[in-house]
Amino acid sequence: MKPVGAKVELVDLPLREDLRGRTPYGAPQLDVPVRLNTNENPYPPTPALVQDVVREVAAIAGELHRYPDRDAVVLREDLAAYLASSTGVPLTSANLWAANGSNEVLQQILQAFGGPGRSALGFEPSYSMHPIIAAGTRTEWAPTPRRADFSLDVARAAETIAERAPDVVFVTSPNNPTGQSLPVADLRVLIEAAPGMVVVDEAYAEFSSRESAVVLLEDYPAKLIVSRTMSKAFAFAGGRLGYLAAAPAVVDALQLVRLPYHLSALTQAAARASLRHAAETLGSVAKLAAERDRVMGSLAGLGFSVVPSDANFVLFGWFEDTRAAWRAYLERGVLIRDVGIAGHLRVTVGTPEENDAFLAASKEVGR
Amino acid sequence: MKPVGAKVELVDLPLREDLRGRTPYGAPQLDVPVRLNTNENPYPPTPALVQDVVREVAAIAGELHRYPDRDAVVLREDLAAYLASSTGVPLTSANLWAANGSNEVLQQILQAFGGPGRSALGFEPSYSMHPIIAAGTRTEWAPTPRRADFSLDVARAAETIAERAPDVVFVTSPNNPTGQSLPVADLRVLIEAAPGMVVVDEAYAEFSSRESAVVLLEDYPAKLIVSRTMSKAFAFAGGRLGYLAAAPAVVDALQLVRLPYHLSALTQAAARASLRHAAETLGSVAKLAAERDRVMGSLAGLGFSVVPSDANFVLFGWFEDTRAAWRAYLERGVLIRDVGIAGHLRVTVGTPEENDAFLAASKEVGR
Repeated sequence: MKPVGAKVELVDLPLREDLRGRTPYGAPQLDVPVRLNTNENPYPPTPALVQDVVREVAAIAGELHRYPDRDAVVLREDLAAYLASSTGVPLTSANLWAANGSNEVLQQILQAFGGPGRSALGFEPSYSMHPIIAAGTRTEWAPTPRRADFSLDVARAAETIAERAPDVVFVTSPNNPTGQSLPVADLRVLIEAAPGMVVVDEAYAEFSSRESAVVLLEDYPAKLIVSRTMSKAFAFAGGRLGYLAAAPAVVDALQLVRLPYHLSALTQAAARASLRHAAETLGSVAKLAAERDRVMGSLAGLGFSVVPSDANFVLFGWFEDTRAAWRAYLERGVLIRDVGIAGHLRVTVGTPEENDAFLAASKEVGR
Repeated sequence: MKPVGAKVELVDLPLREDLRGRTPYGAPQLDVPVRLNTNENPYPPTPALVQDVVREVAAIAGELHRYPDRDAVVLREDLAAYLASSTGVPLTSANLWAANGSNEVLQQILQAFGGPGRSALGFEPSYSMHPIIAAGTRTEWAPTPRRADFSLDVARAAETIAERAPDVVFVTSPNNPTGQSLPVADLRVLIEAAPGMVVVDEAYAEFSSRESAVVLLEDYPAKLIVSRTMSKAFAFAGGRLGYLAAAPAVVDALQLVRLPYHLSALTQAAARASLRHAAETLGSVAKLAAERDRVMGSLAGLGFSVVPSDANFVLFGWFEDTRAAWRAYLERGVLIRDVGIAGHLRVTVGTPEENDAFLAASKEVGR
């Protein structure tokens, strides 16, 4: 039986013109033995963390008929405490904001500071959701190329920012999908050049030994926003918790565009439980960084060209037929990511066993 | 100690001009004995439901390091089954879409079918988030007044729709904050007049004995969207689950604008548990409808003018000083809502005890 209303198709609907012909964003969700395609943390939550999440949810489940704390104050306090302890900057809940994944955080930023008649600039290749969220908020997107080796020419980037004067600049550090990160001194140059807001997207910060852009907040309170996520280092991709650190006034601005009660009581409770286990969860980060270095070394040993990574993934090549290579990995039970960069594929760093499987497949797939 | 970056204020930021001077949406979240201000269901989840939510969360918590099902297919199947059984329309998961509260559902609708250069029309007073979400998506808002008694002059409404030709029409039935609902025959007249999409916002449908607009989906697959929420009848406000029923092509359109992985694994699991207990939860709906009728009768007996309601709240007046009256209720431990309609306040129907407290306060507050 056909679903109700199946006689109409997408072309029959009064869809916005700029959406016509587009396809939804997202990596294939395939059930294969080794999934190294979405930069997840391969280590499941510990039994103690699972127990704590369940206990917290049990504690609030009897109140699910009530709306959640609209401002998520206690969660923001916990996020501030974590970020303060890991960066040394004395942040408070007034500096923190959270939403359903960093995508929603970024969307709120563009709703407040971008939008029609305004522009956002990013250094590509980078996180492909930046231009998609710009489009979704009708912010003009100004893509600016990185060097051929995917590193950022900071002096030139600053010139471009000054020339084009975008309302919002995105700097991803470590950069996804290429892996390189920027020192604070370079970030300072970019922020000085920017006439508007600068979003340093630190989704992968915990995997890098670089200092966080958070240390620059006191110097650039009217310009800098540092976005983070619990999806990667915190192994909380299923819980969907993105957050940012900024001046309190920036947080006030985002409250003008956030949907009320955007963050469920479940999310707030589970994220708080997860934060309490930061020490044990982040223990996996060192293991993953060591595995990343091993994967990079082994790939280089197999003759691949490897982009140096400061995150939990590695971009490598060169493939004459990237799509065929991606499929060859899949046929060997290893799901990696074709991020649309000519000649390259991206692999997430998994457990040692998963990485071994990937490296064994790499040997067979060749270049 | 001041927060980091507290030296800058909102006026120092390059905020969009149209947001300047605005304040965040939301009722005061005050801790008072009787909270009848946000149309929550006053009955907490049953112990069996709480247990089931906790069990479901426990079942998925060990996989929180993985992204959730991006398309929430199983949850959408369960929502389809519920809505099919309550409306008699054979819906499938292809007809359903879900997001973090109906606000996010409505935002996605306007991202796909509204936006800059397009307009949305609503019959006011109605749900105040409709114009706010229109503003957030830069959709021009065309407010159209209801009759002085807050009912809808359907023939005139259809004329206005035909004249102004909005891209999206919002019809709230039962209407929040006034309470009246529309028969399907009237909805048909409005849909026939509309050149674009018609969103029937049925957040309070379960409290009404009217037939749902879902029965019109087969006739108007390229025009009609019916939005719903689990916040009210399902007593799941804290879980944040809004959804809609529409033709599969409409669901395809929304997938072009949704943020990937917008719905957490926790939300999907808890909502499914909640849906399994629909029969017991919806049992409270009949009790609340009876209480609503009692509250309306008692208020009328006290000399208030009462707008006839088909939902779980009642709009009543007349107050010379609405703000003072709101405060007089609050001083008596009863939090109700000033919805910005001259001379009127809105009270959510609570438990019999809460309603008694409200009615006792009403006697004292007078008109």
